[in-house]
Amino acid sequence: MRLRNKPWASEYIAEHPKYVIPNPQEQKGNWHKLFGNHHPIHIEVGTGKGQFIVEMAKRNPNINYIGIELYQSVIVSALQKLEEEKLPNLKLLNVNARDLTEIFAPSEVERVYLNFSDPWPKKRHEKRRLTHKSFLTIFENILVEGGEIHLKTDNQGLFEYSLKSFSEYGLLLTFVSLDLHNSDFEGNIMTEYEEKFSKKGQRIYRCEVKFR
Amino acid sequence: MRLRNKPWASEYIAEHPKYVIPNPQEQKGNWHKLFGNHHPIHIEVGTGKGQFIVEMAKRNPNINYIGIELYQSVIVSALQKLEEEKLPNLKLLNVNARDLTEIFAPSEVERVYLNFSDPWPKKRHEKRRLTHKSFLTIFENILVEGGEIHLKTDNQGLFEYSLKSFSEYGLLLTFVSLDLHNSDFEGNIMTEYEEKFSKKGQRIYRCEVKFR
Repeated sequence: MRLRNKPWASEYIAEHPKYVIPNPQEQKGNWHKLFGNHHPIHIEVGTGKGQFIVEMAKRNPNINYIGIELYQSVIVSALQKLEEEKLPNLKLLNVNARDLTEIFAPSEVERVYLNFSDPWPKKRHEKRRLTHKSFLTIFENILVEGGEIHLKTDNQGLFEYSLKSFSEYGLLLTFVSLDLHNSDFEGNIMTEYEEKFSKKGQRIYRCEVKFR
Repeated sequence: MRLRNKPWASEYIAEHPKYVIPNPQEQKGNWHKLFGNHHPIHIEVGTGKGQFIVEMAKRNPNINYIGIELYQSVIVSALQKLEEEKLPNLKLLNVNARDLTEIFAPSEVERVYLNFSDPWPKKRHEKRRLTHKSFLTIFENILVEGGEIHLKTDNQGLFEYSLKSFSEYGLLLTFVSLDLHNSDFEGNIMTEYEEKFSKKGQRIYRCEVKFR
């Protein structure tokens, strides 16, 4: 997505430590305490402007959501939505996905959502794709046994790559749709990006995999 | 595909035992002897009118091909092509895929091709799909270690099902294309069916999996 410089973003984030958790490393192993319950924790890696995770949190009050977003200029849009909705079961983290093992203890998370992740189409950027084995290792580390990754993308190359990478890692493919919006899948929550691109007739690919 | 009654088919097949091997159970464990060499054996299950396997056999003289087709009225078209081309590295079998373990010894085959197999879309017909685990067990039985299945289809439902079934069986996905004819895949040999349906703008899905 296009990044706009928002010089006020940093200050705005700092003013909302209740929603964008500062120094999240300090919460490692204590996220359930922070939420004040033992509901499962689902994280979205690359949460963007937050439409997906805010809607998910509204619909599923018995699940704790954490949105991870690297860019301050983007996460502020998610923060604005969260401030409006005042959801107790949603937190945001302005961190790099590479650092997730510093932030979550083993088995602290039950599900990872990857929505319209950057496809990094060039072969030399393969390691940056969120479904590269280096990230799968990170996800495996923080997920419970049988933990899941739910992936959605309009990028054919990223989807093909991810299916292979998941298979190589030994993950179990439990769901796959090669045309989500023309399938009988129910309860799909669209991201901002998904709304825009599906209107253009772009196919949306989706799958669920499980660590076994 | 539409089946036409061809009363002459049975006799025509019986007259060509060199090409459509009669009593193939008797060759179990001896296929390399029958071909007179030790080249790898690749089989196509559901060989239809034979365009794919005849062309493959022409292009790859160092591979032995065996086309399996249940319907006499269909296999005769493959036989006609083979009679014309007189290929020493191609045989046809008029048998049911369920009987493959009676026909091939363990590790006698190196690769299985599944091209545009009947999708059997109804849930209650799931067991008839050639990528159902009961068939994967049969293929595993006759394939070498690291043996491969190469699948091509225009049927989205069958492809989605097959990806899941392969994953559940523990197969390694080494290649996947969600739009074969618009990819950089080289050397694709089209089946009769593929030519017809890709002209209508239908996407062709293709994958390769490996027993590990």
